[in-house]
Amino acid sequence: MSKSDLIIKGDSLPGMPWEDRPQGCKEVMWRFSKNPVIPRNIIPTSNSVFNSAVVPFKDGYAGVFRCDDTNRRMRLHVGFSKDAIHWDIKETKLEFVCDDQEIGNFVYAYDPRVCFIEDRYYVTWCNGYHGPTIGVAYTFDFETFHQLENAYLPFNRNGVMFPRKINGNYAMLSRPSDNGHTPFGDIFYSESPDMCFWGKHRHVMSPAPFEDSAWQCTKIGAGPIPIETSEGWLLIYHGVLHSCNGFVYSFGSALLDLDQPWKVKFRSGPYLLSPQKDYECMGDVPNVVFPCAALHDPETKRIAVYYGCADTVTGLAFGYIDEIIEFTKKHSII
Amino acid sequence: MSKSDLIIKGDSLPGMPWEDRPQGCKEVMWRFSKNPVIPRNIIPTSNSVFNSAVVPFKDGYAGVFRCDDTNRRMRLHVGFSKDAIHWDIKETKLEFVCDDQEIGNFVYAYDPRVCFIEDRYYVTWCNGYHGPTIGVAYTFDFETFHQLENAYLPFNRNGVMFPRKINGNYAMLSRPSDNGHTPFGDIFYSESPDMCFWGKHRHVMSPAPFEDSAWQCTKIGAGPIPIETSEGWLLIYHGVLHSCNGFVYSFGSALLDLDQPWKVKFRSGPYLLSPQKDYECMGDVPNVVFPCAALHDPETKRIAVYYGCADTVTGLAFGYIDEIIEFTKKHSII
Amino acid sequence: MSKSDLIIKGDSLPGMPWEDRPQGCKEVMWRFSKNPVIPRNIIPTSNSVFNSAVVPFKDGYAGVFRCDDTNRRMRLHVGFSKDAIHWDIKETKLEFVCDDQEIGNFVYAYDPRVCFIEDRYYVTWCNGYHGPTIGVAYTFDFETFHQLENAYLPFNRNGVMFPRKINGNYAMLSRPSDNGHTPFGDIFYSESPDMCFWGKHRHVMSPAPFEDSAWQCTKIGAGPIPIETSEGWLLIYHGVLHSCNGFVYSFGSALLDLDQPWKVKFRSGPYLLSPQKDYECMGDVPNVVFPCAALHDPETKRIAVYYGCADTVTGLAFGYIDEIIEFTKKHSII
Amino acid sequence: MSKSDLIIKGDSLPGMPWEDRPQGCKEVMWRFSKNPVIPRNIIPTSNSVFNSAVVPFKDGYAGVFRCDDTNRRMRLHVGFSKDAIHWDIKETKLEFVCDDQEIGNFVYAYDPRVCFIEDRYYVTWCNGYHGPTIGVAYTFDFETFHQLENAYLPFNRNGVMFPRKINGNYAMLSRPSDNGHTPFGDIFYSESPDMCFWGKHRHVMSPAPFEDSAWQCTKIGAGPIPIETSEGWLLIYHGVLHSCNGFVYSFGSALLDLDQPWKVKFRSGPYLLSPQKDYECMGDVPNVVFPCAALHDPETKRIAVYYGCADTVTGLAFGYIDEIIEFTKKHSII
Amino acid sequence: MSKSDLIIKGDSLPGMPWEDRPQGCKEVMWRFSKNPVIPRNIIPTSNSVFNSAVVPFKDGYAGVFRCDDTNRRMRLHVGFSKDAIHWDIKETKLEFVCDDQEIGNFVYAYDPRVCFIEDRYYVTWCNGYHGPTIGVAYTFDFETFHQLENAYLPFNRNGVMFPRKINGNYAMLSRPSDNGHTPFGDIFYSESPDMCFWGKHRHVMSPAPFEDSAWQCTKIGAGPIPIETSEGWLLIYHGVLHSCNGFVYSFGSALLDLDQPWKVKFRSGPYLLSPQKDYECMGDVPNVVFPCAALHDPETKRIAVYYGCADTVTGLAFGYIDEIIEFTKKHSII
Amino acid sequence: MSKSDLIIKGDSLPGMPWEDRPQGCKEVMWRFSKNPVIPRNIIPTSNSVFNSAVVPFKDGYAGVFRCDDTNRRMRLHVGFSKDAIHWDIKETKLEFVCDDQEIGNFVYAYDPRVCFIEDRYYVTWCNGYHGPTIGVAYTFDFETFHQLENAYLPFNRNGVMFPRKINGNYAMLSRPSDNGHTPFGDIFYSESPDMCFWGKHRHVMSPAPFEDSAWQCTKIGAGPIPIETSEGWLLIYHGVLHSCNGFVYSFGSALLDLDQPWKVKFRSGPYLLSPQKDYECMGDVPNVVFPCAALHDPETKRIAVYYGCADTVTGLAFGYIDEIIEFTKKHSII
Repeated sequence: MSKSDLIIKGDSLPGMPWEDRPQGCKEVMWRFSKNPVIPRNIIPTSNSVFNSAVVPFKDGYAGVFRCDDTNRRMRLHVGFSKDAIHWDIKETKLEFVCDDQEIGNFVYAYDPRVCFIEDRYYVTWCNGYHGPTIGVAYTFDFETFHQLENAYLPFNRNGVMFPRKINGNYAMLSRPSDNGHTPFGDIFYSESPDMCFWGKHRHVMSPAPFEDSAWQCTKIGAGPIPIETSEGWLLIYHGVLHSCNGFVYSFGSALLDLDQPWKVKFRSGPYLLSPQKDYECMGDVPNVVFPCAALHDPETKRIAVYYGCADTVTGLAFGYIDEIIEFTKKHSII
Repeated sequence: MSKSDLIIKGDSLPGMPWEDRPQGCKEVMWRFSKNPVIPRNIIPTSNSVFNSAVVPFKDGYAGVFRCDDTNRRMRLHVGFSKDAIHWDIKETKLEFVCDDQEIGNFVYAYDPRVCFIEDRYYVTWCNGYHGPTIGVAYTFDFETFHQLENAYLPFNRNGVMFPRKINGNYAMLSRPSDNGHTPFGDIFYSESPDMCFWGKHRHVMSPAPFEDSAWQCTKIGAGPIPIETSEGWLLIYHGVLHSCNGFVYSFGSALLDLDQPWKVKFRSGPYLLSPQKDYECMGDVPNVVFPCAALHDPETKRIAVYYGCADTVTGLAFGYIDEIIEFTKKHSII
Repeated sequence: MSKSDLIIKGDSLPGMPWEDRPQGCKEVMWRFSKNPVIPRNIIPTSNSVFNSAVVPFKDGYAGVFRCDDTNRRMRLHVGFSKDAIHWDIKETKLEFVCDDQEIGNFVYAYDPRVCFIEDRYYVTWCNGYHGPTIGVAYTFDFETFHQLENAYLPFNRNGVMFPRKINGNYAMLSRPSDNGHTPFGDIFYSESPDMCFWGKHRHVMSPAPFEDSAWQCTKIGAGPIPIETSEGWLLIYHGVLHSCNGFVYSFGSALLDLDQPWKVKFRSGPYLLSPQKDYECMGDVPNVVFPCAALHDPETKRIAVYYGCADTVTGLAFGYIDEIIEFTKKHSII
Repeated sequence: MSKSDLIIKGDSLPGMPWEDRPQGCKEVMWRFSKNPVIPRNIIPTSNSVFNSAVVPFKDGYAGVFRCDDTNRRMRLHVGFSKDAIHWDIKETKLEFVCDDQEIGNFVYAYDPRVCFIEDRYYVTWCNGYHGPTIGVAYTFDFETFHQLENAYLPFNRNGVMFPRKINGNYAMLSRPSDNGHTPFGDIFYSESPDMCFWGKHRHVMSPAPFEDSAWQCTKIGAGPIPIETSEGWLLIYHGVLHSCNGFVYSFGSALLDLDQPWKVKFRSGPYLLSPQKDYECMGDVPNVVFPCAALHDPETKRIAVYYGCADTVTGLAFGYIDEIIEFTKKHSII
Repeated sequence: MSKSDLIIKGDSLPGMPWEDRPQGCKEVMWRFSKNPVIPRNIIPTSNSVFNSAVVPFKDGYAGVFRCDDTNRRMRLHVGFSKDAIHWDIKETKLEFVCDDQEIGNFVYAYDPRVCFIEDRYYVTWCNGYHGPTIGVAYTFDFETFHQLENAYLPFNRNGVMFPRKINGNYAMLSRPSDNGHTPFGDIFYSESPDMCFWGKHRHVMSPAPFEDSAWQCTKIGAGPIPIETSEGWLLIYHGVLHSCNGFVYSFGSALLDLDQPWKVKFRSGPYLLSPQKDYECMGDVPNVVFPCAALHDPETKRIAVYYGCADTVTGLAFGYIDEIIEFTKKHSII
Repeated sequence: MSKSDLIIKGDSLPGMPWEDRPQGCKEVMWRFSKNPVIPRNIIPTSNSVFNSAVVPFKDGYAGVFRCDDTNRRMRLHVGFSKDAIHWDIKETKLEFVCDDQEIGNFVYAYDPRVCFIEDRYYVTWCNGYHGPTIGVAYTFDFETFHQLENAYLPFNRNGVMFPRKINGNYAMLSRPSDNGHTPFGDIFYSESPDMCFWGKHRHVMSPAPFEDSAWQCTKIGAGPIPIETSEGWLLIYHGVLHSCNGFVYSFGSALLDLDQPWKVKFRSGPYLLSPQKDYECMGDVPNVVFPCAALHDPETKRIAVYYGCADTVTGLAFGYIDEIIEFTKKHSII
């Protein structure tokens, strides 16, 4: 493929956050110079703000943010922004509307993703229901959120929807896990005709062998909403290494087949970003970079990835989609 | 309720295996005097035969048996019997017919249940697909078995269907777990409109507090197909205690709401049966009684429970449904 | 010391249970030929009866028995016997009288010991109070039991009193532990002026090095009430080996200094009894012999040890105190 | 209660360390701008100085400091100061005077607290005696320290005395634990008539449920000497969260009943302070703030809390007692 | 290969223990009807006798036996027999002669193998030297045993020599492990020019995948001295499955390349023997069959395998070498 | 010994890196002011450069560096320098020449040491061969490296050669371990006549008791090539403490007997260096200082130690050999 042939789906987003690659930098992705873009105490009651989702909304941006409070309870908060950098986050937590009290009863909520499909924004998050599972809701206006049935039985985390139906069904990636600090975890794919019942579960990918790509050898999980391109779905995902001093979270990229997204065409051996900065190495959980959302502009091929830093603050990293795809293919371990 | 008011659903089964309560016995359930009813080496290549499913079929009985071979590989075998005691088990393992190779590819299969719904027999089992999950198939004749999609994402075990649709959907109990010797486990309920997509997951019950009923304080899982009665669904389920020398599997009973089976009306504090006999205490996994199937006769209220013994052989225990229900209500820990 | 010099304290007990050493037997202690002396289902609701305490009482014997019910809840039951072999155990569990509800609130009770001091019988047991600790009560008549303050903070097990004051204080051995299946455990000694406040804690002995005496290399705990002799306090205690298939409980003997019982004079390298019989190797917890009480007759030097078998039934073993002392000294690992 | 009604016990201490709340700060407690107030190498042989106790003494202050040496051995050192900020710490470790060599034999000592009662200063600390337990000593002059019996059997940590007798007895909080990096731990209360024998043990509080207050969901332990107020005993205590990368120690507050201090009237859901600064997040044990002492002035209601930072240095945080009490009541999880 | 072409090396041994295959038995190997052939208390001080080595010696047989004493200390004892069934085992433990006290200092010794090479008998065993490693000694007469250097660094177990030099060097199989109940373990091959220095380490085989042969999926280790045949070295080896109730030890067979024994030609998926009898399932370590020695007669192709049963007693199983080879090839998982 | 009597072996190295002890510093070793001397990204593909070996070579220095790439794969790279501070590291990984593909097949390589003996440079490293073991190679020119047989069976790490034969044999220290983040580890000594077969294994030293020297109480391992002095072999070694938040790696010193290096004459209780700087406390594995090489000049007695920092970058620390020896003897825990 010549670079110019690449087709990237998505609405034009010329005003998205951006900063050119710094001089001398040879990395595929580089950090925003003003990181962390969201500080831990942006609202009075927050202990930390990280692992959050942002999307274009009206003439600006909206987001669903993980704000742990000073009880260290995991909560979602809605926020709005004109430039996707300076955020106005609501001080009161997001309350879902739900007919069935069994499902609507709030226990905890974390690591949200937001995905626009057809006419509305779907939110998926790690939802406490006798263990962590994938909560699902939708909103038209980021004011009212309608909570649906949980997608799966526990234990599950990192439920990430595709931005359009596949094979006529809604589609979601997720990461089955256990009831603690899961030391394993593969990415799976599931479909639903109606956002209520889920099935056709397919295995997508496992952690890499330690000898091949150690940063992703313990567990992996999908990050932002996959981006459709002529080369396949571009998936940015986190991977975990278990050192003798705990888990290290980095992130890399993969290309999934457009029609059978459980088939991985390419997968990066090297990471795109690993925890190296003070605000990534120090905080409530040291050594974590954890991407949950991305903005991109098909014309310029720019992408801006929002990622949680040390489970404490939120960072922003930039890159070019075509370069990331090239990097993924060139250094693929598949 | 007076005893005579009890209504038990199901076809008449006057010829089911039976032995009267032994003299002096005050237990609610008692063992077959000829236990183990199926020896470990009933077929030449079997290491053990246990945790198996039997149903009335034609003028006799059919079954799907867990036969681990001498590689200690977990396999299912079909068997037939005239009296449900003496079994003719096929020497070749059950092969499922499946269009989709991704699903049909055999890894391992264990702990089957068989449930007749409307016009066919559904088999559910613990199926190896990147971890244990619930495999699903159906058969009309116990010759050809059509494998469907796995019901859930891994990790799951003990998928047990209800013998009729509930709220217009197929219904199944299951026990989400992890990728090893899971030291936890609750029973959940799920529905499906089509036996392909599953949802409306509801929590049914957790292990009991150690102080209340220690034999079921580590994990629990559904056993035979629930029996519909006017008192609710009669569920026989196993529970596990973690002693300093490993897991001890016993079994007890519960009554679930007929329309909302995730609501537990009564639950027995005492066990119905715990491992006490040589063939239950000694074998490949000592101290296990594990029920997977039951035959019952509505008229006489008789029930015969098939249970795995020490993960090695198969035992049979008898009781009266009305007495079990009374016992469950009288000693309920709810 | 010549054998005839040995002085053994205690009341004469000529009618205690006894059976002569079997022909050909060279062991220091031997089992009762009618073991198990108490079956698991001696009362209708019992799952098991073991780790229990017996004492001479009036013209016969009384006992406090650990009877786990079929909920597998740990309970104490009072019993009486004419011959200390055939027991009449009450079907209702022992209820303590206690002024302070915080202490008297029953959670669980197991592994009792009974010790006569001066004018009454003290019962100590493993008592559930935010973790296992040592419960204390006294009775004059085995009808009414007055519960006192718990002796220690959790986590503790195997509290065993001395049959007379030492240095002017009540004295107790115990085994600090943790909140689970403790894989460690030393015996300590404590004193109390009033059976309410405890202190002057002294370390008595640790598990033996694996290379010296492996059966007691994981944890140890006092068994029956120590017997006062001119050679010191004769302590029979259990020891635990952690094999790859779980804990193995055996028991041996030690001689403690009369005035400073935390000083161990001799300690047996070989065990007195290890689990070897079917009823010791098979049951709810395989491979356990666990002594909690002994009867002895100073004149004949006979001792009869009651011990739990596989956490399921109760056994009886016999020996001569002088021989046990000689054995302890001869094979001491101190 | 109106704020002005609050009565705080204790001697006037107008010269205690203090710094006003920084502009814009909305926190209940704020850090000293010159933190860490004690560096790790304040004496030549120290690896770290933290988790230490200070009290008013004569016309200045005295303290007992945990100084781990460069062998990483845990030692106590005495220090004096005019202003409670600049400390003169003795280079030789504190040596206790003890009649009984069994008790006086030094193994290790850490996390001291100092409490003035009636006529003397009592020191309690985590003392090595066949495992960690609570060592007790007293001094009149911070020159000679008389060591008493250990208060409890091992395993115990964080023994914190009350500054006056309660119900006629000395009173102490403590945290039973195990022999390693205890992953559990409740606060208990005990009494003693004579500082030798301890009893009347009462459970005070457990870790909070993860869903309610995660920073204290793994274990908790008392911090400085409780402060008597008309609202109850003000207890500042640490709580621990177990993240996938280790323990995080924060601290919060509770109000205990004056006469029955095991009854918790209020308990803060949010923390007062969590590790957020470099010197709290980086060091020998990252992510630790651990309070062991406080100075307070009843008139101004000022409190200054000394806390260990990352098990490496010592920090100081300020607040107003009335505000802390209000905060505790307002955000109570009880 | 036609059966008649098989060449088996070794001296003729027509009087070796033997019992014909029982009628109806279809197993490749069958148990001796008088098992256990050596009881646990064959000498007065033994707790158990198992995992032991026997060889033809003079006009009868000699052996080195693992006899754990009643301290549960692991010891080796020499024994002699006329018929290899009835053994006269010395009551005193085997003492090695060794010039270097550092090596000769006895800590513990277990699981011996004996191998005749050229002019002498080599004994290898698991030897305590700062962890388990492979001890080596030789004897001409089973009276004097000369101890050599340990073959390897700890941690190692199951050192098994080949009965002749390979590639001009002595050759040994072993199983590197760790310092506890190792939950992993591959078989390696090493060579030595002089029985002092060892090298040229080669990996032979790993545990089998759980899905292929679960009885050997946790760890494996060589058993008796390999038997040279025209089909390769016949290796009988144990394999371990980790059930939720502990380790289960079975044994199977493999054929190794004659010149490059680290190359496995065939490996049995099914086991030859698994613990099924009372004396194999019940004892100090339930569910263990562990082969350490074999006698064989090249003419009749008979083999008699001595194996430890439940780490308690010694059993004997019979078979035909040609049938075992055929079985190994037919059911090979390679 | 008077200081002037000390004889230090080795070639004169006046131009080695050096910086005088900073004013006011009283430490035995001090850090280079320009640390980290090698940044993590010195070559484009490196994630980190640490735990590396340098030696004098020709008129400058050569080194073998552990460069983990951004796949987090562990690789060795060759580098050259004029001043041992500014390094030119090859971008392509070191490829060994090896005749035997079984040995030469590259899996991973880390933590190299380089030792000049007689006529060539030997490289030892942790080599992946069915687990970590000690790889061995030699080079004359740092261009071509000839790989020899692995020295030991797995599992082993930290193989460090002596710079001359001892007792006529090559000699190596190593640290047997297990297949994960080994929580134990002693230093052993082995000899080889030919660099192919290894034996005469001797235990050198264990972790220190927690009470004596906690920084080295979990595991220890040899660091740079030992330096021969008239006081014995000066060994700088790392030690590990297991805090509740992971492993902390420090380093200290010992003096080994010249002829029997497994005999430790002196061993420092205090560490020489512990992780205290940002670049030692923060990085891929926080809290690690790990020495792998040293340069020294016998005349000036200067030593420069290269050590890995936080498994991320490389640091340099200076000291005087005579002072280190004096420190080791004065604070010895032997």
